[in-house]
Amino acid sequence: MIIGVIGGESSSMDEERVAYEVGHEIARRGHALICGGRHGIMREACRGAREAGGHTIGILPGEDVSDMNEFVEFPIVTGLGHARNTIIPRTADAVVAIGGRYGTLSEIAFALIAGKPIAGLSTWQLVAPGGEAPPVIPFDSPAEAIDYCERAAAPGGNHVHRAH
Amino acid sequence: MIIGVIGGESSSMDEERVAYEVGHEIARRGHALICGGRHGIMREACRGAREAGGHTIGILPGEDVSDMNEFVEFPIVTGLGHARNTIIPRTADAVVAIGGRYGTLSEIAFALIAGKPIAGLSTWQLVAPGGEAPPVIPFDSPAEAIDYCERAAAPGGNHVHRAH
Amino acid sequence: MIIGVIGGESSSMDEERVAYEVGHEIARRGHALICGGRHGIMREACRGAREAGGHTIGILPGEDVSDMNEFVEFPIVTGLGHARNTIIPRTADAVVAIGGRYGTLSEIAFALIAGKPIAGLSTWQLVAPGGEAPPVIPFDSPAEAIDYCERAAAPGGNHVHRAH
Amino acid sequence: MIIGVIGGESSSMDEERVAYEVGHEIARRGHALICGGRHGIMREACRGAREAGGHTIGILPGEDVSDMNEFVEFPIVTGLGHARNTIIPRTADAVVAIGGRYGTLSEIAFALIAGKPIAGLSTWQLVAPGGEAPPVIPFDSPAEAIDYCERAAAPGGNHVHRAH
Repeated sequence: MIIGVIGGESSSMDEERVAYEVGHEIARRGHALICGGRHGIMREACRGAREAGGHTIGILPGEDVSDMNEFVEFPIVTGLGHARNTIIPRTADAVVAIGGRYGTLSEIAFALIAGKPIAGLSTWQLVAPGGEAPPVIPFDSPAEAIDYCERAAAPGGNHVHRAH
Repeated sequence: MIIGVIGGESSSMDEERVAYEVGHEIARRGHALICGGRHGIMREACRGAREAGGHTIGILPGEDVSDMNEFVEFPIVTGLGHARNTIIPRTADAVVAIGGRYGTLSEIAFALIAGKPIAGLSTWQLVAPGGEAPPVIPFDSPAEAIDYCERAAAPGGNHVHRAH
Repeated sequence: MIIGVIGGESSSMDEERVAYEVGHEIARRGHALICGGRHGIMREACRGAREAGGHTIGILPGEDVSDMNEFVEFPIVTGLGHARNTIIPRTADAVVAIGGRYGTLSEIAFALIAGKPIAGLSTWQLVAPGGEAPPVIPFDSPAEAIDYCERAAAPGGNHVHRAH
Repeated sequence: MIIGVIGGESSSMDEERVAYEVGHEIARRGHALICGGRHGIMREACRGAREAGGHTIGILPGEDVSDMNEFVEFPIVTGLGHARNTIIPRTADAVVAIGGRYGTLSEIAFALIAGKPIAGLSTWQLVAPGGEAPPVIPFDSPAEAIDYCERAAAPGGNHVHRAH
């Protein structure tokens, strides 16, 4: 599977520790990680995944790789600005949202549009106009969040064909 | 000014009546209206604006004009799917959110990213990770919502140079 | 109809004079003009159209209106960088290419993808791998180029519903 | 490095044989391959790269992975339609163009905009308005084309940080 990690550049040390664990857990279980490729939450998640031997993909907003973190293995340079936020939940089989500000909110919205499972770790709380809460499921630990992603993702989703 | 109207295709009759009034009020005050160009809220807002003699712009997701409503004066055909949701709040000087589902949520997120004023009429309620509510200001009537848009928009924003 | 004008920011005085005439002719015949909204060819085409009383739409690459020319009536702010080049030929019923560099080449390619008629005024010459030349039809004057656009565009294309 | 392969879905057997060799050569030299992820040229290039043990990235136009070829290791699902053509040359350190129709022409244009080296194998011939030919360098063999990509790419470009 490819699991998305969404979260901001301005993040607390607690959030960054959680992001590292999420990335580590994703890779330890044999999944690839996709994120926005920048700093804060994104950097720590990539670092965790790389230190567990996994693959990391960064969907960058700018026109070159100058703003990516050093733990992105495959930088995808979009030049699309914030519109690149549509690509991460569209590509991932499931996403983990950690904290986050408005960019993360847009990625949650696109994950809902794409019907992808969303595990939340201290992230946005949303109430739709009719009073209903959309399926952003809160969890207390990275392991539980990844358990949910594995359980809820469509079988045979955007799976990674592994070379090695 | 250009004022954005965001809201879904599946809408109640009450929401559509509100959308018509919002569109009418936007045009009556001499502003142009921008929206997603499709049906439901978008169609009624465009109808209201056209019947008050105003200009309407529809930012369409598909590859042609087949899915637009008949009250769009200037259809912009993006072929970008849901990524076109970034363009409406980026272009508008202020936006009015009416009801709405996940697409509307993504447009609210992009309006927050772009720092545009957002007036809400029975729309999403949001609480950020830290407990703070982002500036989606609720109003009871179309007129009050447009009052807020006019008051809060940056002076000399994306103003329309009028031919006539 | 909506007619697209594609061409660069670095343009000769001859090209700019042609662009002005193209814009003027588009508006004089009752069509709206769409272009990239910036300077050089785009500015002169918009100026021509506005001075003939027509509507002009500018599809801007940046995140605000700071880089648009003053003859754009409806600025569409995409924040998509060069990817906005897909929108102009997709929206237009036909395009006129004037001179141009790589950005114009990308817009010609997207007009070919979208199957839109392309009139060329001193623009790119292209030979496909098999030796065939794609339908970029060269003309000597703005009037002939617009004649071709009117003749070759799909009937009832992205027509403009006029308010006044 | 990441090397892009651009070319169409409708391709001759000769072109597909060339595409396979290009993909194989890219991977044999330790580079990752990026392409549009679909069939024809894209499929054969991915097959060549995978059979030489390399990584392959497919930038897909649709909203899911249903249209990708089975040799894409990392599918990036954009939902952007043809606008995804901007991402491949933006991400690649250099591109190889093989045959191709209008989509390939748009990718050549974006590679020129991004200033990336372009090696051509029986691809488009272009003459700019001023009479100048843009730097799409023709080669006779896959090995020569990749030699050129390695030589001409910016040092320390979008290099791949390898885990293993």
